Amino acid sequence: MPLYIDTHHIEGLTGEAAEAAHQADLETQEKHGVKYLRYWVDEGGGRIYCLIEAPNKEAAMAVHEEAHGHVADEIVEVKEGK
Amino acid sequence: MPLYIDTHHIEGLTGEAAEAAHQADLETQEKHGVKYLRYWVDEGGGRIYCLIEAPNKEAAMAVHEEAHGHVADEIVEVKEGK
Repeated sequence: MPLYIDTHHIEGLTGEAAEAAHQADLETQEKHGVKYLRYWVDEGGGRIYCLIEAPNKEAAMAVHEEAHGHVADEIVEVKEGK
Repeated sequence: MPLYIDTHHIEGLTGEAAEAAHQADLETQEKHGVKYLRYWVDEGGGRIYCLIEAPNKEAAMAVHEEAHGHVADEIVEVKEGK
């Protein structure tokens, strides 16, 4: 399944809010055939990076949209480097 | 040790060039006390994302600078989300 990294920029982000949003993603992802694998948060700078397996970009975005409405600023298809 | 994600944008990027650069990072990192853990490449869009353990940003950047000269466009301190 394709792999994606998405990036979010959210002013006033807290680690707790990111965790709650990620939990909502996990509860929503199955019906879209998506797996949110890992994520990393920069609280001070308001950034989140998510690593996602999804059939396509639209499915990955649909999970965020439905779970909490914080759609990514950018989503990029990637391959993991060796 | 702090964790960082850095991002690169390199026109005409190939997976092979990214792999060679990463190999050079691995050979250079020890003397800076840095560990390049994983990286992801978007060949078409010319993006690389690196996940790095480093004592500080400057040490992480110094590895790229010395190994191949492709310094990141941005480097952000992150915490992995639960």
